[in-house]
Amino acid sequence: MYSFRNDYSECAHPRILEAIAESSLRQTCGYGLDPVCQEAAALIRKLCNTPDADVHFLTGGTQTNLLAAEALLKPYEAVIAAGTGHVNVHETGAIEATGHKVCTVPSPDGRLTPALIEPLLAAHSTEHMVAPRLVYISDTTELGTVYSKADLEALSRFCRQKNLLLYLDGARLGSALEASDLTLPDLTRLTDAFSIGGTKNGALFGEALVFSQPRPDFRWLMKRRGAMLAKGRLLGLQFQVLLEDGLYGELARHANRQALRLRDGLKALGLPAAVDSPSNQQFFILPNPLMEGLAGQGWEFETDHPAGASHTCVRFVTSWATPPAAVDGLLQAVSALLQPS
Amino acid sequence: MYSFRNDYSECAHPRILEAIAESSLRQTCGYGLDPVCQEAAALIRKLCNTPDADVHFLTGGTQTNLLAAEALLKPYEAVIAAGTGHVNVHETGAIEATGHKVCTVPSPDGRLTPALIEPLLAAHSTEHMVAPRLVYISDTTELGTVYSKADLEALSRFCRQKNLLLYLDGARLGSALEASDLTLPDLTRLTDAFSIGGTKNGALFGEALVFSQPRPDFRWLMKRRGAMLAKGRLLGLQFQVLLEDGLYGELARHANRQALRLRDGLKALGLPAAVDSPSNQQFFILPNPLMEGLAGQGWEFETDHPAGASHTCVRFVTSWATPPAAVDGLLQAVSALLQPS
Amino acid sequence: MYSFRNDYSECAHPRILEAIAESSLRQTCGYGLDPVCQEAAALIRKLCNTPDADVHFLTGGTQTNLLAAEALLKPYEAVIAAGTGHVNVHETGAIEATGHKVCTVPSPDGRLTPALIEPLLAAHSTEHMVAPRLVYISDTTELGTVYSKADLEALSRFCRQKNLLLYLDGARLGSALEASDLTLPDLTRLTDAFSIGGTKNGALFGEALVFSQPRPDFRWLMKRRGAMLAKGRLLGLQFQVLLEDGLYGELARHANRQALRLRDGLKALGLPAAVDSPSNQQFFILPNPLMEGLAGQGWEFETDHPAGASHTCVRFVTSWATPPAAVDGLLQAVSALLQPS
Amino acid sequence: MYSFRNDYSECAHPRILEAIAESSLRQTCGYGLDPVCQEAAALIRKLCNTPDADVHFLTGGTQTNLLAAEALLKPYEAVIAAGTGHVNVHETGAIEATGHKVCTVPSPDGRLTPALIEPLLAAHSTEHMVAPRLVYISDTTELGTVYSKADLEALSRFCRQKNLLLYLDGARLGSALEASDLTLPDLTRLTDAFSIGGTKNGALFGEALVFSQPRPDFRWLMKRRGAMLAKGRLLGLQFQVLLEDGLYGELARHANRQALRLRDGLKALGLPAAVDSPSNQQFFILPNPLMEGLAGQGWEFETDHPAGASHTCVRFVTSWATPPAAVDGLLQAVSALLQPS
Repeated sequence: MYSFRNDYSECAHPRILEAIAESSLRQTCGYGLDPVCQEAAALIRKLCNTPDADVHFLTGGTQTNLLAAEALLKPYEAVIAAGTGHVNVHETGAIEATGHKVCTVPSPDGRLTPALIEPLLAAHSTEHMVAPRLVYISDTTELGTVYSKADLEALSRFCRQKNLLLYLDGARLGSALEASDLTLPDLTRLTDAFSIGGTKNGALFGEALVFSQPRPDFRWLMKRRGAMLAKGRLLGLQFQVLLEDGLYGELARHANRQALRLRDGLKALGLPAAVDSPSNQQFFILPNPLMEGLAGQGWEFETDHPAGASHTCVRFVTSWATPPAAVDGLLQAVSALLQPS
Repeated sequence: MYSFRNDYSECAHPRILEAIAESSLRQTCGYGLDPVCQEAAALIRKLCNTPDADVHFLTGGTQTNLLAAEALLKPYEAVIAAGTGHVNVHETGAIEATGHKVCTVPSPDGRLTPALIEPLLAAHSTEHMVAPRLVYISDTTELGTVYSKADLEALSRFCRQKNLLLYLDGARLGSALEASDLTLPDLTRLTDAFSIGGTKNGALFGEALVFSQPRPDFRWLMKRRGAMLAKGRLLGLQFQVLLEDGLYGELARHANRQALRLRDGLKALGLPAAVDSPSNQQFFILPNPLMEGLAGQGWEFETDHPAGASHTCVRFVTSWATPPAAVDGLLQAVSALLQPS
Repeated sequence: MYSFRNDYSECAHPRILEAIAESSLRQTCGYGLDPVCQEAAALIRKLCNTPDADVHFLTGGTQTNLLAAEALLKPYEAVIAAGTGHVNVHETGAIEATGHKVCTVPSPDGRLTPALIEPLLAAHSTEHMVAPRLVYISDTTELGTVYSKADLEALSRFCRQKNLLLYLDGARLGSALEASDLTLPDLTRLTDAFSIGGTKNGALFGEALVFSQPRPDFRWLMKRRGAMLAKGRLLGLQFQVLLEDGLYGELARHANRQALRLRDGLKALGLPAAVDSPSNQQFFILPNPLMEGLAGQGWEFETDHPAGASHTCVRFVTSWATPPAAVDGLLQAVSALLQPS
Repeated sequence: MYSFRNDYSECAHPRILEAIAESSLRQTCGYGLDPVCQEAAALIRKLCNTPDADVHFLTGGTQTNLLAAEALLKPYEAVIAAGTGHVNVHETGAIEATGHKVCTVPSPDGRLTPALIEPLLAAHSTEHMVAPRLVYISDTTELGTVYSKADLEALSRFCRQKNLLLYLDGARLGSALEASDLTLPDLTRLTDAFSIGGTKNGALFGEALVFSQPRPDFRWLMKRRGAMLAKGRLLGLQFQVLLEDGLYGELARHANRQALRLRDGLKALGLPAAVDSPSNQQFFILPNPLMEGLAGQGWEFETDHPAGASHTCVRFVTSWATPPAAVDGLLQAVSALLQPS
């Protein structure tokens, strides 16, 4: 049995653990000012083809999102997010805890478009309302969908026309880049800031927050929110291992591949996908007896929401660590449970 | 040459790295709800002899301090700290960022006493002033001094008489416990909350925040500030390794022993201590040419403040990882530099 | 011509101005601790038939709402409001500025019911989400609708079952009480806190915030947000004048009467109401040429939103000061503009 | 008997009440966008000789101070204030409630100078500390002292050299301007923002906040903190009455004159001033029996702090409304109580 509950059930890729062990007793200065972090940041700037990009390493996704909002917004300015957006639903009001409202837009598939945002802007006209300013998107989205280069170019153009800022939450960026035609240089070119998620793609923990322009005072904001790791080198080192020779993409490709095998297998068994996802999250509508049967056997996954009286929408997540045999096993279990007894 | 700049220059004790590597591919649920964290919390409750204590694992010290304040205070209530207190000086206003004032009390050696706090209480009488409520102390203090059991009992009694809460920042708790007669059960008995610092005593990172009473809603506060680690097991596991068979004390004893060797050696060479410290931070007044000579040779340490025109107060910190030979080497270098040429 | 734009276009009822002038040179202590405020608070407790109610006087509605939320909520708890709720739309994120999220519920007519709130509660289950806690309603609502005693009893019962708190924003409470069967004693009995709006019913400014239970530390919260008026007696005095012999109800009855005359007149002229409102705000769908004709003549009102391509939903507000002749004049102007030319 | 407790014991100057009554039924738009506020702002710009100054009207002093700090500072930047500063002591942590630390500097007489501030700047060097940015001064200070033009020029020059901003809390600006060589044009020239206090100089309430440069988004910040008065015209009107033909200065002169008569009279009776104050606050050291004798007769004043075992430092405040006979009466009472019985 295996848990498809999320992509952080295992700890870290062996190469990361080896690199930490190998360098553990070497002394460095603290708080991310060490040579390892500097090299990792330089590597990211190079991969983004943006010499002026400002790179900071943080421990988790919510921390990264709240600091990006705090850095980019004036007190009365608001975040614009899909109703399903992680900052709106699953961060216990972390953005609001920095004093900023999250304005929501209904989105059918978790993505935002200019057409979805425009009515919100039209409705916010005076100083009696917040000023919507920072468009928050996630890629992959909370529903597993992804942005194409054309999607992001259209959204970026709209934001610049409307004096909006654009932030991309890349907690699952590896999976997104592998499932679309977007590249890192596209991200610095088209957004004001984005994150490169390590936690969900093989690191112990860690997100790299990349601002397309220098933010010389960001370290003050980090420290003020308790987000500066004493042994910051741990973050730099992990991103170095992940990014210096393509491991990051390789791990994401593995996760996506297992997800698509799972998706195709479930479809072949006649089960409908709730969302059409090319990435490592797959949402399917299962008959409740099937869902309960799988759970009874010890398979783990998230139940997202009831889909009528007799079905449930469940989420399966694969990761860098998912053994292909686990996908096979799950598909066999589904098949067996679907047989007429 | 060696860096005595701080106690987080090296990464982690080998046993911690081994435990992480050994369990890395085992799947667990996330966010600190896994069995490893539960066992580590149970172990801490047992070591504290307090079955009701509420234990949470966090990644860093500033994060821990700000969340303790946020959990324990109403919006208009304030922290009481020594002027030298870490929350007052070195956390970029993290407490104020949660909306709470830090009221300061001058302290000659970094410790607080009832007599030092009493005038502050007398001066805060009406709703036009904040209500001082949470006494913040650190042990060891920022000057390396420690609280005895009698000290802490007196302060605790005073706090309860005055309806104050008491929080002990244990970023360097290992060093403090080894240098005093205090024990973990004293801490749950005498404080409302305290932390057990891992970062500065052999962990990759991690602080255990212990509330003497249950705080059923603390996890909401953690998540809201981006302080919930996805792979929370990493924190539980490290505290398990450190605490299950005495490694935590052993590492702190090593650090203290090296510090006292350094202290005694410097005194024997005729150099005066700025503070009388029994712990792993040692403050000495060095003639500027000596200080510059050491720095020129590559020895590292912090310069705390100028002590007159020709001397400087510097801080030497030892850790679980400090080789005894590094202390010997530093003392020899000092001795050589002090020789008349 | 007359402005029906809002109910604070005129300044204050003459009896209020006279009372201020008459007592102006009498010395009192400041910040609402004076005998006048104490008498006004006692009068409100008596009118509410709640000897333990805690009454505070504030200058404006947004200030009152944000302080009620701050007083009643823990940091991670959220407000529940209709999407049209004043705190959600028209207060520039004042609630979020205190760190609390506003969770919204779609409401067809501006009112909340248990059935509307229940799905929101069901969707908020873990510490990864805010904890919805304070139900915010306004009476009259932003659409002019009102709660009956049965409505409020059902909502109050639901809140107590679900461990929710209930706050009623009474910026237009006079109009609501006159248009429904609710009374002040119902409000202390059924809510945790509510406000009695003075600004929109004849005062220079001022809201009385009434907690059904004592809140001994509320004055600290007030002062901390800059909400304590130095010459607090001005607030007590105005509520005394309004409440001691029924002036408050009399002014609201006048406003409602003019609103209903306007409503009935517009309906008689064949114009459709957008919402069925019994209070001093009336929303009508006007053909754009009619709307523009009225505006061109100098009549003032708010345009709420476009209603298709050729019509607009506009809001007419009457007040304690609206001359009956102004209503007559507006109806005549509408009638004339509707005549075939 | 008379209360010298503060300068807001009486309500408002008759001319202000008359102007309100006269215009009460005239309709205007709300929230400070009306013609009256616009004229009052234009008048202030003219009196300051600064066509670009940005003028906003607020209801109280704490509100004004917290909004000035919020408008001028980034999240991690701090206020610099004298230990006795109003924002540090008497505003219940209102600045901290916006997330900003108040760094204090000891000041012998309530005033700040470059020499007092310099050590604080030297001590704040890294991102582990807040960035001190906004120098808060009050004029008159909390001890009744005032800044000369030379004082303010030196402080302003220092601030610009050090990239600091300068804010002057003018809650008692009338008294300060009458007691020094400073003028309104000096204030826009030398500070980044300052307030003109109405509450303590004859208004019902009201502070004008003047930014030396345009702040186009300040109204969003105001509304967000509940600081926008619905009938904003009330604020504009009061400042118009106070400033259009010199009433503001006249009232302040009266207050100062009575204070100096009181000061000189007390000195002539052999009583020592605690601070040498040229303004409407006078601090004297009274023998406790004298203090108690006065209080027993019904004279009111504030006891500031014990001055040894047998004396107390008390504060007498005069205002625009203090009758000269009240000063005479107090002096006679003191004289009589000092007679050997």
